[in-house]
Amino acid sequence: MNFKQIEISEKLVPVNYLKLAVESQKSKEIKVKELFEKRSLPEEGWSDDLIEYTVQQLTNLDSNNFPHKAGLGEREARIACNLVARRHYSFGHGIGRSGDLLEAQPKAVGSSILSQLTNNMLLQLLRTMGIKSCQSSFLVPLATGMTLTLCFLSLKKQRPQAKYILWSRIDQKSCFKSITTAGFTPIIINPVRKEGREGLFTNLRQFTEQLDRLPNEKILCIMSTTSCFAPRNMDAIYELAELAKKYNVPHVVNNAYGLQSQYICSHIEGAAKHGRIDLFVQSTDKNLMVPVGGAIVAGFNEEIVHNVAKSYAGRASSSQTLDVFMTLLSLGRNGYLTLSRERKQTYEDLKAHLIDFADNNKCSLKHSKFNPISMALYLDNLSEEQPTKLGSMLYTRGISGTRVVAAGSNKTIDGYEFKNWGTHEDIEGPAYLTAAASLGLTSCEIEVFIKKLKECWKDLHAQMAKK
Amino acid sequence: MNFKQIEISEKLVPVNYLKLAVESQKSKEIKVKELFEKRSLPEEGWSDDLIEYTVQQLTNLDSNNFPHKAGLGEREARIACNLVARRHYSFGHGIGRSGDLLEAQPKAVGSSILSQLTNNMLLQLLRTMGIKSCQSSFLVPLATGMTLTLCFLSLKKQRPQAKYILWSRIDQKSCFKSITTAGFTPIIINPVRKEGREGLFTNLRQFTEQLDRLPNEKILCIMSTTSCFAPRNMDAIYELAELAKKYNVPHVVNNAYGLQSQYICSHIEGAAKHGRIDLFVQSTDKNLMVPVGGAIVAGFNEEIVHNVAKSYAGRASSSQTLDVFMTLLSLGRNGYLTLSRERKQTYEDLKAHLIDFADNNKCSLKHSKFNPISMALYLDNLSEEQPTKLGSMLYTRGISGTRVVAAGSNKTIDGYEFKNWGTHEDIEGPAYLTAAASLGLTSCEIEVFIKKLKECWKDLHAQMAKK
Amino acid sequence: MNFKQIEISEKLVPVNYLKLAVESQKSKEIKVKELFEKRSLPEEGWSDDLIEYTVQQLTNLDSNNFPHKAGLGEREARIACNLVARRHYSFGHGIGRSGDLLEAQPKAVGSSILSQLTNNMLLQLLRTMGIKSCQSSFLVPLATGMTLTLCFLSLKKQRPQAKYILWSRIDQKSCFKSITTAGFTPIIINPVRKEGREGLFTNLRQFTEQLDRLPNEKILCIMSTTSCFAPRNMDAIYELAELAKKYNVPHVVNNAYGLQSQYICSHIEGAAKHGRIDLFVQSTDKNLMVPVGGAIVAGFNEEIVHNVAKSYAGRASSSQTLDVFMTLLSLGRNGYLTLSRERKQTYEDLKAHLIDFADNNKCSLKHSKFNPISMALYLDNLSEEQPTKLGSMLYTRGISGTRVVAAGSNKTIDGYEFKNWGTHEDIEGPAYLTAAASLGLTSCEIEVFIKKLKECWKDLHAQMAKK
Amino acid sequence: MNFKQIEISEKLVPVNYLKLAVESQKSKEIKVKELFEKRSLPEEGWSDDLIEYTVQQLTNLDSNNFPHKAGLGEREARIACNLVARRHYSFGHGIGRSGDLLEAQPKAVGSSILSQLTNNMLLQLLRTMGIKSCQSSFLVPLATGMTLTLCFLSLKKQRPQAKYILWSRIDQKSCFKSITTAGFTPIIINPVRKEGREGLFTNLRQFTEQLDRLPNEKILCIMSTTSCFAPRNMDAIYELAELAKKYNVPHVVNNAYGLQSQYICSHIEGAAKHGRIDLFVQSTDKNLMVPVGGAIVAGFNEEIVHNVAKSYAGRASSSQTLDVFMTLLSLGRNGYLTLSRERKQTYEDLKAHLIDFADNNKCSLKHSKFNPISMALYLDNLSEEQPTKLGSMLYTRGISGTRVVAAGSNKTIDGYEFKNWGTHEDIEGPAYLTAAASLGLTSCEIEVFIKKLKECWKDLHAQMAKK
Repeated sequence: MNFKQIEISEKLVPVNYLKLAVESQKSKEIKVKELFEKRSLPEEGWSDDLIEYTVQQLTNLDSNNFPHKAGLGEREARIACNLVARRHYSFGHGIGRSGDLLEAQPKAVGSSILSQLTNNMLLQLLRTMGIKSCQSSFLVPLATGMTLTLCFLSLKKQRPQAKYILWSRIDQKSCFKSITTAGFTPIIINPVRKEGREGLFTNLRQFTEQLDRLPNEKILCIMSTTSCFAPRNMDAIYELAELAKKYNVPHVVNNAYGLQSQYICSHIEGAAKHGRIDLFVQSTDKNLMVPVGGAIVAGFNEEIVHNVAKSYAGRASSSQTLDVFMTLLSLGRNGYLTLSRERKQTYEDLKAHLIDFADNNKCSLKHSKFNPISMALYLDNLSEEQPTKLGSMLYTRGISGTRVVAAGSNKTIDGYEFKNWGTHEDIEGPAYLTAAASLGLTSCEIEVFIKKLKECWKDLHAQMAKK
Repeated sequence: MNFKQIEISEKLVPVNYLKLAVESQKSKEIKVKELFEKRSLPEEGWSDDLIEYTVQQLTNLDSNNFPHKAGLGEREARIACNLVARRHYSFGHGIGRSGDLLEAQPKAVGSSILSQLTNNMLLQLLRTMGIKSCQSSFLVPLATGMTLTLCFLSLKKQRPQAKYILWSRIDQKSCFKSITTAGFTPIIINPVRKEGREGLFTNLRQFTEQLDRLPNEKILCIMSTTSCFAPRNMDAIYELAELAKKYNVPHVVNNAYGLQSQYICSHIEGAAKHGRIDLFVQSTDKNLMVPVGGAIVAGFNEEIVHNVAKSYAGRASSSQTLDVFMTLLSLGRNGYLTLSRERKQTYEDLKAHLIDFADNNKCSLKHSKFNPISMALYLDNLSEEQPTKLGSMLYTRGISGTRVVAAGSNKTIDGYEFKNWGTHEDIEGPAYLTAAASLGLTSCEIEVFIKKLKECWKDLHAQMAKK
Repeated sequence: MNFKQIEISEKLVPVNYLKLAVESQKSKEIKVKELFEKRSLPEEGWSDDLIEYTVQQLTNLDSNNFPHKAGLGEREARIACNLVARRHYSFGHGIGRSGDLLEAQPKAVGSSILSQLTNNMLLQLLRTMGIKSCQSSFLVPLATGMTLTLCFLSLKKQRPQAKYILWSRIDQKSCFKSITTAGFTPIIINPVRKEGREGLFTNLRQFTEQLDRLPNEKILCIMSTTSCFAPRNMDAIYELAELAKKYNVPHVVNNAYGLQSQYICSHIEGAAKHGRIDLFVQSTDKNLMVPVGGAIVAGFNEEIVHNVAKSYAGRASSSQTLDVFMTLLSLGRNGYLTLSRERKQTYEDLKAHLIDFADNNKCSLKHSKFNPISMALYLDNLSEEQPTKLGSMLYTRGISGTRVVAAGSNKTIDGYEFKNWGTHEDIEGPAYLTAAASLGLTSCEIEVFIKKLKECWKDLHAQMAKK
Repeated sequence: MNFKQIEISEKLVPVNYLKLAVESQKSKEIKVKELFEKRSLPEEGWSDDLIEYTVQQLTNLDSNNFPHKAGLGEREARIACNLVARRHYSFGHGIGRSGDLLEAQPKAVGSSILSQLTNNMLLQLLRTMGIKSCQSSFLVPLATGMTLTLCFLSLKKQRPQAKYILWSRIDQKSCFKSITTAGFTPIIINPVRKEGREGLFTNLRQFTEQLDRLPNEKILCIMSTTSCFAPRNMDAIYELAELAKKYNVPHVVNNAYGLQSQYICSHIEGAAKHGRIDLFVQSTDKNLMVPVGGAIVAGFNEEIVHNVAKSYAGRASSSQTLDVFMTLLSLGRNGYLTLSRERKQTYEDLKAHLIDFADNNKCSLKHSKFNPISMALYLDNLSEEQPTKLGSMLYTRGISGTRVVAAGSNKTIDGYEFKNWGTHEDIEGPAYLTAAASLGLTSCEIEVFIKKLKECWKDLHAQMAKK
């Protein structure tokens, strides 16, 4: 409300009281003005009130919220249930138009601005985290896996003969399914161990072999992954990008939860500069702490990125956009950087605690600078079903997210068989337990985890002794 | 809260007062119990309070909302912004598991139940509206177009050689893009006019010719559309289903906003019984009055439907599920039937008003029983830019959703050229204005529309006179 | 937000889309501007969104919500619990200043405006309902009884010798306690029956006798009541006002739930014109359908009314003000008039139903034009405990608000004894059941009531038969 | 919801997933059960979700929220405006019954429990803060001043001849008005200075003289104050309590914002043990950080306290009760103790900063252990209008709550004249600025204050230099 344009009578409140109160609003007005005019992520986070105010002003600009309107179309963004209208701030029209997620809707000016502002802020966030050369990015209201599928389908339009995707194996189901759902044939390249170094590394030799072997036009792209469970390390994206450039094939990076790490981001930036990355995709839930359901498509060439947006058939939910919009305003640039720094610290804390645990319990912790998020506690001394039992005990006690991985479990997905599913490799090794320091993990949670781990360990050994 | 299991002291309230108050809760408890045990759409709508209560009980069952938990995984459904947590009732884990939208998540029991209940209620709604033989259905948090793409990609797994989709032309961009995005080649079959009958009909002859001509294994499916802008009528799905059966090719029905019409639904039921429909897809926003972003995939064979769910790579947003869950509880079976009946009545009212307008203004209204939602006002007497001008005048005055269509505008989408885009046919005809009676349209809106139409008409002629 | 003062880039949304959307906001802006500038009740009700927007703009003007502030006082309106802050829209400072409920607070400009606007709208509402000469009114966040106490204490400052209040008996406890709590001695004047007319009437003769008998300066005021349970009628306020004028004593009217009735309001207007009414008090919950806890003090002389406001020691809760503010904006003048008219109609319906019931069940309905809200069903044929039993049966079946009154129950309140408490008179009569048609009663509720009444009646007679 | 009483089909979710999720709810269930069964303040604060859940369960027990009900009374707690219903969680019936704020309402079981639980928790809080002998307490939805008025009116019923209140002067308007509004004559006893000690002390000699002089039955009570602006110290309540006991007159303590200080609370406890305190009153906003509008009446004799509750004429708003209920659950016992400890620390910080400022700017800070909240910065070197100017400069810069007090301003309230209003004494002294360390003050606010104070000081001297 612009109190300056309303003549508030002295009968309501003395003019000098009012003046001071109106003045005090100035800093908020400037924030809002800057957001719309500069279209960039604010330095400091906003208050919830100011965020809601801004959102409400935007929703008013959508035609379904106009005071006097009549809707004679097949889609008028009517909302039947009050609770639903309320939780969506009466946004109903979604984002994008039939043919293009990035196009403005005449009927939904507020939603269109919401979407553009969010995409602009995301781009700035990517750059802030270290991917300075990033040229374009947008939010797509799809899971990361489906978003990768969309990227592949979009690339296919430029490479209509393409059939294969060269994929550095990672045992995460939806990552693999993103290939088969898009109708491509995966060329699975198992990672390898290197002498004297922890973890699994990209098998560059085999990538080169395949690139040499397969007809270029039959290859859709190389697909690499940056964030993964230990002991798999992030792929050698620098070298893969060089190969992509050399062989002139597209390169798609699955950066699922890598945005939260400046280390990973700097690798993406470096790889793109010296080699070729066409598109990289990250999920919003893991990197921005919003509910599951969105991903960010980004790249170093505006047209390639925009082509993905043009592949989405139909307009899409604006719910994920709203979540990200609110979250980015709530955190601000500095808030996100602080979260990211804290995460790095919790990684160190978790590592220290687990090394200590390992030292005292005859097991060993494997960690590598090439995986700055996840680490693996090797349960060398446990046998048979004990590792699985440990995992289940932890879960029952409220520890979620750790996973016990043991070799020997094979799995067939969409006709492709994987040996030792979960371990990322065909060679059998000892069982281990992974733990990740992801965004938002608190030191209090680490303490609870270590405490419960010790309890479970004790109980497990007590049970062993009984037998 | 189970007040029966808590001993409430007389010091808080006299026992006889309390007893009566606790008894009064019984009817609510029964409703909730029935929902969970029968898993079916309630007859009568629920109060907002009871809906929110149920939702809150479910969200408590998701592990991110457990009181004492530690999350050591890469995805722990932390929510950074309070406003976001609040609007999602703290649901964060989405629905489905990596490989299957219909699978329960161990970490997210509440979300899993929410999703299953919603799908069960949707199935009952489809049956209530007349598709009694429907065997399976589920909500997918994607636009209708993208959902069709997903259906095609899913069918492809059974028909790996398939390349073509036989498509009865409808000039709606995302419907067409659903084919090209999935990587298929559309065989475009223009609808035809029939002597003595209003509107455009499916060109069955040409469908038969193509089915004869193309190798069966190269055809992915027939794609028909039931809900569309006049003067195009719904496709002859009965006959197309017979062809699909005869030629043994899948048949996918785009029922975008047809669920709201019992007439259309009864055609789907009939077609499936006598012929073949593999999958039919409808959008949630248009049929259930929720925000844009979801679709319902349904079919008459559980496995075919489930295969679509298995094609979605990654877990998906639960936001659309929550919207539909709340809306269905809020309306109940009877509430939805009432809305549907009212819609039918508004169609009649709109028709009567427009016939009256046409009679008085030398234009003509085209309507057909084969399009129970949309009608076309032919602007026979307007010339050149006047029709477009009329459309723009209406929009400026707050009338949304009507569209003025004039021949002569060609359009190329993904390499395919369409003559007279918007008219669904290559033959040129006079300009017309469409208006639809869709779910939720009020008689008050019709009055506003007719009033504004008259005003615009008058202004338009006044401007003509000046020249 | 003033989109006109922000330069929204074409990159966010095309300028012509934006223009139309911004234009559509005009009607809302005008509504808000008029509210602040004219300070009067809007003709038509506002949408919830617009109400919340206005409230949020006001709360921003309170110093506890200023972005950069430091509070070094003993009272800084900090709010510890988020839920509390949210439900009060962060209003914390209350209304008024130490010495005067109507004074603006420098620290709380928004609250001050909220309070003044509410009082202005209430004055207009009183006039709309027929009390056209009303000069001043304000909301006090106190129950009606306590507000009457405050009025008496305020009048006492002008009449320091006063000891007595002449009170036309009504058997409603807090009404009587308002006198004793204020420290005055009630002169209880029982109402009387009149030949040939229904109900209990004011005993004007005894009022005159007491006015003659007592020293004028010892009398604080006459206290009359307009809204009451049948068979008591509203007091003869016209004649009492004449007596008050003639004898030069103040006259306070307890108009507890009379504001909803134009009939009662017109009597207040007439009485004030021809006689003397100093203050009249009505509760907000019964007349405005807000939660219990507020009252409106009004009168025909600004100073007398203002003196009551000056008697309130300390600043007061703004919660009731906010409720009334929101409710008045939500209803608008026309909304309230509609509710009031509907109430009048439900009175007629209820009467017709009960006459019908009485005719069929050998009892009789007593109603009078001098009580336009409540009526009494005389249970002539029931004996002993049956009436009480009937009342309890009704309550158990979900009928609230009816009360069964039987003579013979005496009660002592603050040392004063009342014979036949509940009947308003010393003479014993038959038992009866009262029912009221108050604001918001629906015809559906009447039907439920009559149905349950018939059931209970039948059960009661079945039980009798058994004995 | 009691998931244990609902048979959740395996079709909704696997039974082992569900079991774990249901188990995880146990700790919440226990919390709720304990609250209702033990009726005491929880040790640890609750989550917002659990608080809202509990509140919603209670509101369901009020008859206006019963699913099938018909209301035929004059007061049925209907709520017209959705926004109002929502913010009150549909509570509408208020608390108490006509004659007694502490009585349960048959129609409003939830509200009754809410009220009783809140009063029980408040009693425990008073004891926790050090008033261990406190026997009874209740929340009254009135400002502190009006609550004192109610206490006086209640005492009057036991001392009908009483006319005078012996009042230790404190220049806070509503405190004084609480006496005159109740209709009593204040005997104003100015505090005195003591050699060698800071601040103003109770003039015990004069109290004794007045108690000797006035007829005992004419004295309603002694009224003392514990929390006040420096340089006035808290009254010598220990000695006043002894006098009250010796002379057999009631003693009412205005403990406005003293509950937050264990030091003040321990004095009340001590005074009550060795002498006589009938009632002590504290405001909820200042001590519990809720919006203005409530007070807590407490005492060491249940009957005396209950008599106050019986004096409130009519039922009262439950809004303040709800605020306090939510806040106490949100903080828990430990949360409140932490806040109280932090406050004590901010007092020390503020003192240190101001001493430092005083040392560097030729002024002096007066503080005393007898005022543990407020301190006074004596502006010895400023002359004429400078102190007032300083106050206004600070306020304009966002510092609220400090007040500049200068002698020489006389004021008449309800006919009583006060010399040097604001200074609490007749003798003129130098101007000073007060600052308080009240509950919730943050160290960040102290820094802002000191920074702004320095800025203003500099500007003020720069202006002086110019002249």
